[in-house]
Amino acid sequence: MSIYEKIDSYIDKHLDQSLNELKRYAAQPSISAQNLGLKECAQIVKEMLEKRGFVAEVMATDGAPVVLAERKGKVDKTILIYNHYDVQPPEPLELWDSPPFEPQIRDGKMYGRGVSDDKGHLTSRLHAIDAILAEEGELPCNIKFIVEGEEETSSVHLHDFIAQNLEKLKADACIWEFGGVDHRGRPQQYLGLRGICYVELSVTSLSADVHSGVGGSIFPNAAWRLVWALGTLKGSDERIRIPGFYDDCVQPTERDREFMDKLPDLADEYKNRYGVKQFIKGIQGGIELKIEEVFAPTCTICGLTSGYQGPGSKTVQPAYASAKVDFRLVPNQKPQEILKKLRAHLDAEGFSDVEIKFLGGEPAARTDPDHPFVKLVVETAEEVYDAKMDIVPMVGGSGPNYPFVYDLGLPVVTMGIGYPDTKAHAPNENFRIDLYAQHAKHMARVIKEFAK
Amino acid sequence: MSIYEKIDSYIDKHLDQSLNELKRYAAQPSISAQNLGLKECAQIVKEMLEKRGFVAEVMATDGAPVVLAERKGKVDKTILIYNHYDVQPPEPLELWDSPPFEPQIRDGKMYGRGVSDDKGHLTSRLHAIDAILAEEGELPCNIKFIVEGEEETSSVHLHDFIAQNLEKLKADACIWEFGGVDHRGRPQQYLGLRGICYVELSVTSLSADVHSGVGGSIFPNAAWRLVWALGTLKGSDERIRIPGFYDDCVQPTERDREFMDKLPDLADEYKNRYGVKQFIKGIQGGIELKIEEVFAPTCTICGLTSGYQGPGSKTVQPAYASAKVDFRLVPNQKPQEILKKLRAHLDAEGFSDVEIKFLGGEPAARTDPDHPFVKLVVETAEEVYDAKMDIVPMVGGSGPNYPFVYDLGLPVVTMGIGYPDTKAHAPNENFRIDLYAQHAKHMARVIKEFAK
Repeated sequence: MSIYEKIDSYIDKHLDQSLNELKRYAAQPSISAQNLGLKECAQIVKEMLEKRGFVAEVMATDGAPVVLAERKGKVDKTILIYNHYDVQPPEPLELWDSPPFEPQIRDGKMYGRGVSDDKGHLTSRLHAIDAILAEEGELPCNIKFIVEGEEETSSVHLHDFIAQNLEKLKADACIWEFGGVDHRGRPQQYLGLRGICYVELSVTSLSADVHSGVGGSIFPNAAWRLVWALGTLKGSDERIRIPGFYDDCVQPTERDREFMDKLPDLADEYKNRYGVKQFIKGIQGGIELKIEEVFAPTCTICGLTSGYQGPGSKTVQPAYASAKVDFRLVPNQKPQEILKKLRAHLDAEGFSDVEIKFLGGEPAARTDPDHPFVKLVVETAEEVYDAKMDIVPMVGGSGPNYPFVYDLGLPVVTMGIGYPDTKAHAPNENFRIDLYAQHAKHMARVIKEFAK
Repeated sequence: MSIYEKIDSYIDKHLDQSLNELKRYAAQPSISAQNLGLKECAQIVKEMLEKRGFVAEVMATDGAPVVLAERKGKVDKTILIYNHYDVQPPEPLELWDSPPFEPQIRDGKMYGRGVSDDKGHLTSRLHAIDAILAEEGELPCNIKFIVEGEEETSSVHLHDFIAQNLEKLKADACIWEFGGVDHRGRPQQYLGLRGICYVELSVTSLSADVHSGVGGSIFPNAAWRLVWALGTLKGSDERIRIPGFYDDCVQPTERDREFMDKLPDLADEYKNRYGVKQFIKGIQGGIELKIEEVFAPTCTICGLTSGYQGPGSKTVQPAYASAKVDFRLVPNQKPQEILKKLRAHLDAEGFSDVEIKFLGGEPAARTDPDHPFVKLVVETAEEVYDAKMDIVPMVGGSGPNYPFVYDLGLPVVTMGIGYPDTKAHAPNENFRIDLYAQHAKHMARVIKEFAK
């Protein structure tokens, strides 16, 4: 029996043990948007790492604590693994088939808030480490973990934390918090993440709500002010109207287009999965869709709130209105620059009364597809998944990969338990248990081959 | 002692008794927007009327029941009194100084949801009737009551109800549900109400919310669709852009302007009371403000809801968004016409995906300032309030006076316990107890003088 056969066998035989550990971990609510259960969850992470012989510490930040851990291995080369222990709010609760913080296994899947994004990734990786330690008694190389608690709220403090702990985080390669397979079951190598700039825009027009029969004709209406201000940000042609917004955008290269062209056309998949009747901007599918969804910046309203929102009618003129807006950024857009341009634009359009609250941001960052570590991850995937890993130069989501790529100078690769129906950020978040085991097997190979 | 001295003395001596009856009445939540406690409240109204010897019945409609009551008097002339037993939702609860459904007296005022709008009006009127009955043993003329339960949700079923019960409601004059004094303590005679057309606009763009990193670039966003659609209804110049919206508007006459000109300038009053920095449309105050606030139609966003509205950030693309919008109408605009124009406009602007739900409406209606009943009410007011009653040809609020004016052919007058700080539709709704007693005294005079 080869060493990988032994490791795979260990992973399969002890799978329930790992899933039970995940169930306990995911049962701890840790909602960064609501500052709920974060310290408790960091402590659970620390204990899970210490159980594997890691030297772990919970480090304070101005926000949620960060868990750092390290265990030395045979060869002095270091893999840094990034995960996060916070999760999205579980609302709307009524759409869950089982309680979000009582993880449940049904039909080969585990359901619960955070089981896929991102708690299951961490436990699957720990399961790979358990298998290596069980078979070999030691790690083949150094492994470091950085597990933060504010990923779902734009990792507001992570960039500074990394800049202040460069020595502790020093490594040769980085494995990202997520990854997975596409709808055909082919593993995906995501080599870039868009940046993000998340803001709350709000207007206060009166000292209190007023009867709409009194206020409607003559007082400024906070909801109207907000609607008009939003309308200046993006029109129904989907073009973002903030002057200079597109200035720093780097267009995808010919090579990017080649990579994207090889990926499957997800047009029908999207339409079925999300009930999309037609894509925006007149897009039909194909390369046009693939490029648009990752290489274009966005301006998305994530939420609106104002006045009366209950059943029936209430004749009230709202004193307050607010919108959550997320801008996805492409290289080389910078969140702080976007903020400045947004403020200048609103002022120029006559909306100085619209307040901007910055809720977090990070620029986009990409890893070179020709880096040897990328090749290693792609090659080892093939053995586990019996399919060639796709190179995806850029994805639509965001994350704090910028300081890993630029401050720490690391190649950042993605691999994980994800699949298209994983419902991250939505009710009935889940993962497939077969993919959970495959990710552990892939991790074990990456760690061992990297040490060679 | 004159008969009015006797009646006034009765009203003052038995005031606590009437306020206690109101406390019990207002302690019954009766929120038409939430279909809460309506039947229970109708029963309370019926019992209060029967206690005064009225023949009362609770009549079913397709919505909340209507209470009709009648007591014959010495002379065969009939006053019809219109009130409503439903109230606005009490939210936001945290802004109340005492619980909304536990009426409390502090500093000469009673606080609670509905105590002013409109429950206190009914009990004050019953108190006037009690005084007359105590002093004279009978009513000088016939009195009918119509007390409905859907006024706060645009009286959706009242117009049909009146049309079907013309005989039962036959009368010679009508006293409206509200009225009161202005900031100088001068009683106001409101002779017209604007109409209303209340709609909920909604967009469903996806089968479920989706991660904004996935959906933001390529899927239609319900919140954006709604914002853009709203932006086509009214621009920041406050002009309503629905084609034909202003077509049927009747401009105020020179006589209207004369009446309005005599009214006090409330510009500073509004600014202080509602924290208004400046009025819309560049209005400064004076006749311009007075005309604009009642003789112009409006389009008011009363509420907005979509996606994530909690603390912090959630990167989600909303599948659903909705807005509550109220149009205040002037003579001769008709709600059904406005609805048709709104639908045609949204379709023409490319917003066929915006659904319109009609939540109620009524056209505007006015009473002739020269009607003898108006003069009687104005003259009797002077004795009670020691101030001349102002004639206000039109007010900004709405109500179902149209069927009273046009179907029943009645002059409709306003008189009541209201004052500028009554906070109807807002937290800490209240009335002044001195004005409550004055209204009862005025009512007694109107009933007796009308019978002469």
